[in-house]
Amino acid sequence: MTRHNIAVLAGDGIGPEVMREANKVLDAVAAQCGFELVRQDYAVGGYAIDHHGKALPNETLKGCENADAILFGSIGGPKWDSLPLEQRPERAALLTLRSHFDLFSNLRPARIYPGLEALSPLRIDIAKSGVDVLVVRELTSGIYFGQPKGIDGEGEAQNAFDTMRYSRKEIRRIAHSAFNAASKRNNKVTSVDKANVLVSSRLWREVVEDVAKDYPNVSLEHIYIDNATMQLIANPSQFDVMLCSNLFGDILSDECAIITGSMGLLPSASINADGFGMYEPAGGSAPDIAGKGIANPIAQILSAAMMLKFSLNEEKAASIIEDAVTKTLMDGILTGELLPKDQREHAKSTSEVGDYVVSVI
Amino acid sequence: MTRHNIAVLAGDGIGPEVMREANKVLDAVAAQCGFELVRQDYAVGGYAIDHHGKALPNETLKGCENADAILFGSIGGPKWDSLPLEQRPERAALLTLRSHFDLFSNLRPARIYPGLEALSPLRIDIAKSGVDVLVVRELTSGIYFGQPKGIDGEGEAQNAFDTMRYSRKEIRRIAHSAFNAASKRNNKVTSVDKANVLVSSRLWREVVEDVAKDYPNVSLEHIYIDNATMQLIANPSQFDVMLCSNLFGDILSDECAIITGSMGLLPSASINADGFGMYEPAGGSAPDIAGKGIANPIAQILSAAMMLKFSLNEEKAASIIEDAVTKTLMDGILTGELLPKDQREHAKSTSEVGDYVVSVI
Ligand SMILES: CC(C)[C@H](C(=O)O)[C@@H](O)C(=O)O
Ligand SMILES: CC(C)[C@H](C(=O)O)[C@@H](O)C(=O)O
Repeated sequence: MTRHNIAVLAGDGIGPEVMREANKVLDAVAAQCGFELVRQDYAVGGYAIDHHGKALPNETLKGCENADAILFGSIGGPKWDSLPLEQRPERAALLTLRSHFDLFSNLRPARIYPGLEALSPLRIDIAKSGVDVLVVRELTSGIYFGQPKGIDGEGEAQNAFDTMRYSRKEIRRIAHSAFNAASKRNNKVTSVDKANVLVSSRLWREVVEDVAKDYPNVSLEHIYIDNATMQLIANPSQFDVMLCSNLFGDILSDECAIITGSMGLLPSASINADGFGMYEPAGGSAPDIAGKGIANPIAQILSAAMMLKFSLNEEKAASIIEDAVTKTLMDGILTGELLPKDQREHAKSTSEVGDYVVSVI
Repeated sequence: MTRHNIAVLAGDGIGPEVMREANKVLDAVAAQCGFELVRQDYAVGGYAIDHHGKALPNETLKGCENADAILFGSIGGPKWDSLPLEQRPERAALLTLRSHFDLFSNLRPARIYPGLEALSPLRIDIAKSGVDVLVVRELTSGIYFGQPKGIDGEGEAQNAFDTMRYSRKEIRRIAHSAFNAASKRNNKVTSVDKANVLVSSRLWREVVEDVAKDYPNVSLEHIYIDNATMQLIANPSQFDVMLCSNLFGDILSDECAIITGSMGLLPSASINADGFGMYEPAGGSAPDIAGKGIANPIAQILSAAMMLKFSLNEEKAASIIEDAVTKTLMDGILTGELLPKDQREHAKSTSEVGDYVVSVI
């Protein structure tokens, strides 16, 4: 029997409780498809700071190195917000994991599920136009990691600087991710840049056009980041895959997420060139609702499905989960935040939703 | 009689036709308030490329230097899009004017006018919550102008870079603009940054907090750019003044503009330390509707009002125009794009709207 080793980093806030449901679902699908999942839990984030003195203990990093994939919950919370920036969970754990494993390809799908249009903050006719976008974000370069970064000078002339830097190689590999993804979706890539102002965007555009030649069936458009921000609101159904640099992808993927109105449904994947990856919900640790059993486990469950598909080569198992989730939503098995305010008495708990997904499988 | 010298740069597309209406309105208000306006027209943008070989002819720049303010229309269009980037109207004229006159303080107000909520792409309950935001964008530094900028290396390792750079002085003066504006509005500044990743954002945050001490009646909040993008859609009425760096302000001001659903109503101002400024509509040159007499002149008219207020010290005249515009909108004197599709036969022409504003004055 194929055996997959998974490092499970549940983290803070709602992380552990939604992870429990993802684990149930993984067990069900492994039994059905006939493979074995060996899971090992590791401390991360605020929990790790409290118990091991840092957000990403060495043991956790080692455990991830020895695994076939990382299933990640969510981290951070007010308790650790006053720490120096470099020690805070989001940076010390997230950014370090991304760069340590060279997880350059970040996939953030966002869609409005039929029947859930009223949750979208967009006008109902726009929400109903069919929103289904995949943001492909470059995750290990650009202004996040570009050198030099620092502070120069004294007094009022003192200035701080960051460098947005991209090499052809870095642009090429993320562009391939986007075109590959588009060729399995609706064959359209929209590359986001600010080529009317940034030199790095001009190289971006040039390399993306070069990569496009390898994908004759996928169409390519370029759009400026400021215009993209507007088009996503006014006419989101025009987009299929949006190819973005690190910073622009940070901004646009959050914008995509909010327009669906259902952050609790959105998974994400961060993958390297060998197919190793980290899988996590798009939403945060939501400390305000943690421990109440009301958090939506779907994003974590769909993140597990992405892991099966992209890192563990278990495409069939991934589809089974995705179909089961769709059925669960269609059947109206919803946590409270997905329901209109006057129908919240019909809300299902975190574990009821997880159990239902398992029962469908 | 006080005399003001204005350089009028109508530009391309709908620029000249909406400028005509702004001029009518300026004449009316000058007569009523007892000051003299001396206007001189100069070529800019695509028109200037066609007639003088470049988007910002020396004569135009000289004319602006000798004026008390610049009233700007809009520039660019498909005809000039294939020119090398550096020669294109948007860059060669706009970015040069901004940096030549050190127009560091860019004010972009965006509001949803009562009665026009249905135009907003946001859900109607959100559109009706009272959206009235002023984006204060730093316009002459940051990643737009930061040095170094360029290309290094060869082959696949070749990399292009831009520098996001801010000095204390640059941050301080734009922060003062924002707090000043807020103290005349709803006393709230939300400063937008990415301090969890960028060193320049950390200095930004530090200086903004320092400036805040001078304005005890104005509250200050910090928000990350990715979260700001979401909050503007989900809950825009929470914002009063949003203080942004050049790039983040580019993105957020366009987002603010689109959520109003009425780009043709939004003016902007770009001002330097001496009060000299350039005033222009937020929307573009709209070549597709140019020359048809259907463009909305309100953004240009309100830009003229901002000019009177910020550069010419004619606050009363500015208020008269603003009140006249509000009455015009309330009276339903609207260009077609502000009307529901099935009521477009009641649309007023560009000049009818201008005439009505004049008649109210
Ligand atoms: C926490 C932060 C550093 C991170 C980022 O900016 O990448 C987050 O916003 C994200 O999008 O995963
Ligand atoms: C045309 C472009 C260079 C400009 C900018 O990015 O500043 C425009 O988008 C704006 O916001 O005025």
